[in-house]
Amino acid sequence: MRALLLAAHGSRREASNQEVRAFAVELAGRLKGSFDRVECAFLELASPAIDEAVERLYAEGVTEVLVYPYFLAAGRHVASDIPEIIGELERRLPSLEITLAPYLGADPELPDLVARGLRGE
Amino acid sequence: MRALLLAAHGSRREASNQEVRAFAVELAGRLKGSFDRVECAFLELASPAIDEAVERLYAEGVTEVLVYPYFLAAGRHVASDIPEIIGELERRLPSLEITLAPYLGADPELPDLVARGLRGE
Repeated sequence: MRALLLAAHGSRREASNQEVRAFAVELAGRLKGSFDRVECAFLELASPAIDEAVERLYAEGVTEVLVYPYFLAAGRHVASDIPEIIGELERRLPSLEITLAPYLGADPELPDLVARGLRGE
Repeated sequence: MRALLLAAHGSRREASNQEVRAFAVELAGRLKGSFDRVECAFLELASPAIDEAVERLYAEGVTEVLVYPYFLAAGRHVASDIPEIIGELERRLPSLEITLAPYLGADPELPDLVARGLRGE
């Protein structure tokens, strides 16, 4: 069983966290067939934490997790914090296959999307 | 003269800030004809600050600035901090027209882009 975990920053503003959860629901609809489960988790300030979410997915029978950093640039969260959490999870759950996807900001289509939005297309 | 200002969070990791600057350069190439200037600025931890960047653009003859929050969710930075900075700039520079664009995370095309990336398309 394969899961996608959207790993977001988390906010003190709960509406922002709800937005991320709604985004994960939108993605789930688009990724049927590719992932059995699509969920989100947060690095800070919101629940669930990334490690909690992965452990729960594992307990529910997930065998592969793709962690997708929902971040625009590779600051310390993307470059260090998320890889460290994954490394720790790999030690704790050796039979779970965890893969780290490139973060959103690395998507080569992003400049075109932003430019289209700004031109009002 | 019309400018786009990409307003990003800023990082302690300078490579992350450089990534945002490179993104602004990519956007500039795509938005010729829509904006005379495309620059980026940061809320925290990196230079220039948003107010510094707007004041410099104004000093250089820009009459309209569109501020685009390069953020994925409307946390406090998007909901409060950036609008407050813009409000203050409007008081200081009454002859400059400053408009706040919707933030990136509100772009309705974003879920499709992320889903395509995750399906490897």
